[in-house]
Amino acid sequence: MKVCIIGDCGGHIGCIFDGENQNIEYIGASVSSEYEKMDSFLRFAKSKGKEIPFYENWKDMLIKLNPDIVAVDTVFSNHAKVAQFALENNIHVYCEKPVATEIKDLEGLRNAHDHSGARLFAMMTMRYEPWFYTAKKLIENGAVGKILMINAQKSYKLGSRAQFYKKRQTYGGTIPWVSIHMIDQILWLTGKKCKSVYARHSAAENRGCGELEMTAIIMMELENDILCHINTDYLRPSNAPTHGDDRIRIAGTDGVLEVREGKVYLINNKNDGIQVELLKPPKIFDSFLHYIKSDYDPIYEFCDGIYSTYVSLKARESADSGHVIRID
Amino acid sequence: MKVCIIGDCGGHIGCIFDGENQNIEYIGASVSSEYEKMDSFLRFAKSKGKEIPFYENWKDMLIKLNPDIVAVDTVFSNHAKVAQFALENNIHVYCEKPVATEIKDLEGLRNAHDHSGARLFAMMTMRYEPWFYTAKKLIENGAVGKILMINAQKSYKLGSRAQFYKKRQTYGGTIPWVSIHMIDQILWLTGKKCKSVYARHSAAENRGCGELEMTAIIMMELENDILCHINTDYLRPSNAPTHGDDRIRIAGTDGVLEVREGKVYLINNKNDGIQVELLKPPKIFDSFLHYIKSDYDPIYEFCDGIYSTYVSLKARESADSGHVIRID
Repeated sequence: MKVCIIGDCGGHIGCIFDGENQNIEYIGASVSSEYEKMDSFLRFAKSKGKEIPFYENWKDMLIKLNPDIVAVDTVFSNHAKVAQFALENNIHVYCEKPVATEIKDLEGLRNAHDHSGARLFAMMTMRYEPWFYTAKKLIENGAVGKILMINAQKSYKLGSRAQFYKKRQTYGGTIPWVSIHMIDQILWLTGKKCKSVYARHSAAENRGCGELEMTAIIMMELENDILCHINTDYLRPSNAPTHGDDRIRIAGTDGVLEVREGKVYLINNKNDGIQVELLKPPKIFDSFLHYIKSDYDPIYEFCDGIYSTYVSLKARESADSGHVIRID
Repeated sequence: MKVCIIGDCGGHIGCIFDGENQNIEYIGASVSSEYEKMDSFLRFAKSKGKEIPFYENWKDMLIKLNPDIVAVDTVFSNHAKVAQFALENNIHVYCEKPVATEIKDLEGLRNAHDHSGARLFAMMTMRYEPWFYTAKKLIENGAVGKILMINAQKSYKLGSRAQFYKKRQTYGGTIPWVSIHMIDQILWLTGKKCKSVYARHSAAENRGCGELEMTAIIMMELENDILCHINTDYLRPSNAPTHGDDRIRIAGTDGVLEVREGKVYLINNKNDGIQVELLKPPKIFDSFLHYIKSDYDPIYEFCDGIYSTYVSLKARESADSGHVIRID
């Protein structure tokens, strides 16, 4: 399989070198905007023994090299444009989330995906963390019964953010960039659709980060009377032991399951709040390769990221407008 | 001080025997509805060496005995009526929360309170738990800087519920009965007003409990760009180690403070997520006695419970209607 890479903005692109993907050739790298630099990525590739040629123009590169796969990690607002072009040229896309930052771009991408012989896969990296993967398997096995409530958290350190994070136009917003992981978890863990969403967000006290929202809260109502919330912030202190404080709590008719600090806790009629042994998920890029060979596994449900992105953009619209948004 | 007691519905009334209140005479007990029984309370009082006469009619009792204080723990929908009557007769009221279950009753109570020589104090018992009291003191001392986000949880075991819990008319709803504790915590910890509220709740899977809502989520936007959420449920499994799983997380410009499992954790530039030593709060009934003697302490802020009840009832209205409600 021949792979091109465009951009190095999201921080997850390094995973294309992980896993057991032994028949991969990395044949070209490019950028899609002035915000993207590939120097550091190309040095990293070199350290792994991969010399990847750089191309000035990403479209020309894709047309000239005609790869099997393109890994898209551009400035976030360009994900959709680049992914859509690749799908229109029947190139499989391994894309950083969100797959779009505007509804109209998402519609174009969805349309291209529907008509392409190639597949789209979004980097919903949290599905591949052992604790969330274990939670998914436990829920599939009925550990909490019928799910009635999910509460989730994403808390990040702000650290030092590149310029493109400071503008909605290039960043897309904290809901589509950060909260989307938990929107995806909720949709993936339940397998249900979202009926309505309400959200608020605020850029107050963002330490010179322009339009970047420091906080967001989202409420989602899913099919089957499932109530969910997600709280997101960049307020994790710099001396905290990890970058992120990711949590999820799933309460159902027969138990409560919780992921916190990389551990899974379960209370039900067989478990008294104990820590559950973690399962080992596959590597995300291996999973993508598996998926484009047309195999199916529940871990890939909604793996194109289109629905999670759609709900994220509706949540952002709610947070901007202050209105509840009904979703079909 | 002479005290009468009306009802034994909420589970907190026993605390009138706690503390250092040595000059208290318990002179009469009664009920306000068919749902209330005083037998068990009177036996409990007897076991403490207090023989309390029972009166058939609560109004007649108050007029005849003219106590200094009445402790109100009726079926929840009667709190306001009984408290209002007491205030109109210049009797101090120690009242189970919510102080009303309907806005019109709350308005009547507020009006009586405004014109009474007596005081109203709501049993916001969580303020007197060492972990929440410690959180309050830490926040007052600037432990998290300017608060930007609060996330709170109340999760209870359902257990066996009395008949009056099964009807909105007598119970009032899970938001005014359970979530109100965390609404009060949020208003008390921040000292800010609520600008808007949105909530959803559901009675699905409530194991024959009629109209009782098993789940609720509330979003509140406070003054100063503070975003808050509360998730409430009766889904805590029966084998869990405690009745309630109460939590709060307060994230600010300078740190994150969390209460969980009766402990307080703090991350800021001086604390690396460590557990903080708990302070010892006063007993709630002592606090009430202190308050009616006109002393002032921050622990008593909004201690009449009127504003917390108001926000709770607006949250319930939002959950019923599906609309965001702006609050003046």
